[in-house]
Amino acid sequence: MIEWSSTDLQWMDLALTLARATRGQTHPNPQVGAVLVADGQLIGLGSHLKAGESHAEVHALKMAGERARGATLYVTLEPCAHVGKTPPCADAVIRAGIARVVVALEDPDPRVAGLGISRMREAGIAVEVGCRHAQTEELLRPYLHVKATGLPYVTLKLATTLDGYLATSSGESLYMTGDAARAAVHRLRAQVDAVCVGIGTVLADDPRLTVRLEGEFRQPARVVFDRMARLPINAHMVSDGAAVTHALVSEEASSERIRELRAHGVHVTVIGSRETLTMRAMLHKLVDLGFVHVLIEGGSSIAAALIKEQLATELWWFHAPLILGQGMPALGKLSIASLRSAVTIENPRVEVFGSDVLTRGSLKYT
Amino acid sequence: MIEWSSTDLQWMDLALTLARATRGQTHPNPQVGAVLVADGQLIGLGSHLKAGESHAEVHALKMAGERARGATLYVTLEPCAHVGKTPPCADAVIRAGIARVVVALEDPDPRVAGLGISRMREAGIAVEVGCRHAQTEELLRPYLHVKATGLPYVTLKLATTLDGYLATSSGESLYMTGDAARAAVHRLRAQVDAVCVGIGTVLADDPRLTVRLEGEFRQPARVVFDRMARLPINAHMVSDGAAVTHALVSEEASSERIRELRAHGVHVTVIGSRETLTMRAMLHKLVDLGFVHVLIEGGSSIAAALIKEQLATELWWFHAPLILGQGMPALGKLSIASLRSAVTIENPRVEVFGSDVLTRGSLKYT
Repeated sequence: MIEWSSTDLQWMDLALTLARATRGQTHPNPQVGAVLVADGQLIGLGSHLKAGESHAEVHALKMAGERARGATLYVTLEPCAHVGKTPPCADAVIRAGIARVVVALEDPDPRVAGLGISRMREAGIAVEVGCRHAQTEELLRPYLHVKATGLPYVTLKLATTLDGYLATSSGESLYMTGDAARAAVHRLRAQVDAVCVGIGTVLADDPRLTVRLEGEFRQPARVVFDRMARLPINAHMVSDGAAVTHALVSEEASSERIRELRAHGVHVTVIGSRETLTMRAMLHKLVDLGFVHVLIEGGSSIAAALIKEQLATELWWFHAPLILGQGMPALGKLSIASLRSAVTIENPRVEVFGSDVLTRGSLKYT
Repeated sequence: MIEWSSTDLQWMDLALTLARATRGQTHPNPQVGAVLVADGQLIGLGSHLKAGESHAEVHALKMAGERARGATLYVTLEPCAHVGKTPPCADAVIRAGIARVVVALEDPDPRVAGLGISRMREAGIAVEVGCRHAQTEELLRPYLHVKATGLPYVTLKLATTLDGYLATSSGESLYMTGDAARAAVHRLRAQVDAVCVGIGTVLADDPRLTVRLEGEFRQPARVVFDRMARLPINAHMVSDGAAVTHALVSEEASSERIRELRAHGVHVTVIGSRETLTMRAMLHKLVDLGFVHVLIEGGSSIAAALIKEQLATELWWFHAPLILGQGMPALGKLSIASLRSAVTIENPRVEVFGSDVLTRGSLKYT
């Protein structure tokens, strides 16, 4: 393992800060930051801002101009080696006369996967890999998950009573948790690419699924799993114009309803027949639509399907200090017969929001 | 409201520390501490150690001897004015020639209730009441609860999955929470007068209900709610001799079984007929047996009855980071139809034990 100098670590930390600052805005691309340094001084900065636009290295090289010759580039992800929507960054780095490149993480994208690094090395550049490797992996967890599985990184959010009920038997559930917990959910929404719910939740609660916080926030897309295209035209998600709304429907959905939804601005995607329209198929489609990190907010049958089919990557479970004794359980039956086969949260993190408790972490299936 | 001097507060804090140090050992009496001070110097210390033995003031007066004349007594609870198992403390204070008495809290016991204070005042002593009032009320919460309601202070402890299951459908539940949470439960046991379970829990899990921690600990009594006297002779609670065991049975229980249990050292109390043997009746009997603060550890039907009849004073709910999707719910049906009528935990305190979360606090019923 390379022992990184404190200056290398400092500059890579800056590059990571630039990458983190674009949270939620680069999908389906990863967040990347780049810093150019010459003679111990900063000469260029870059973040990848939006898919289709310049990569981080290119912004940094532009800022540096001629001074880039002989400089060191710190970049959180391996520069690309292929022509995508923009030309290969590895070539731009070579052309600019960069002497040394420090990379945090190799890009697992099969079109890159070490090719960017080898091309720069062949051009005589000293390339070192692995500086702030773990921090970058943490930042790019959703991107790496999609590259590894072809499925989006799914955060499942649930809010229940202490005894695990989503709602009363009559369906009363809005405002179970307090203001602080709701604000945390809104901050989470602001960090994901799409917020998804089942049509049952739309028909029951008519949620907005928008980020409603002080200040200006990027609104994630909204997605309804809606096999039969039952999304009402007067639902908030259709009528409020606050964010893009997608509906995933089956081939059996009425074409008239699909036309009507499209006429009202809903992005309707038809996927397979009602039988083949599994949760897995819908999640694959979300990747096709460019969503890397999705938040799924219910209802209980969708939550149960996500856990049962081991598709939820991460769980956020809020407990409000209430007891109902009966009501709508958070999850349907999972056919888990023994404690050993229980689904667990690995290294759970616990946060307290007012009177509510959030237990969150990656899910581990047996 | 009196503005207390910093020396008054310091001496009363010491008296409170002496009171706190006897946690779990004074029932049915309250924990009390006393400090005697003359010329700014400590001349006497006392704690009430055990019911039937000297009160805190008496210990402090004994330690001070003749120097008590003209001194100030700091005592957390109003000195008693009646002859109980020991003579009235107010008289001892007067006889010792104490000049000033600072009391944290008036004793709500109808045999005292201000009489101790007025008797000392009549004798010319300057008595001031209310120093560290709130802290003392907090310490004596179980005692005050019994005096106010005639019922024990009931801490209900539950440990479930995130989705609220006590156990799998087949009853597997031991070791759901981790070591740190279990140690917290053992520390809680060491602070209560009795640990109670239903006979169903005994038959299913054969629990010991003892304090098993490093070091020496007082063992609380063990109580089984056992209408038909089904407690097996080979149950740990009967055979291990680790602590006193009580069984509360109905008149319909077999007299032979009662004899057998008594022959094996179990304290059997017969209360009413099977129909009138309600949870409330059993709790009243616990007060008669001298238990002020009881911990109830299950099972689910007892937990549900305690909540339904508003008899649980305080709740400790542990959540392990597991999901089962089905199993044995923590509570039976409570007939709560709306969120507004949900039972809530007031100002819940949240603690994390390893991967488990404890939400605890006083229960508020609507």
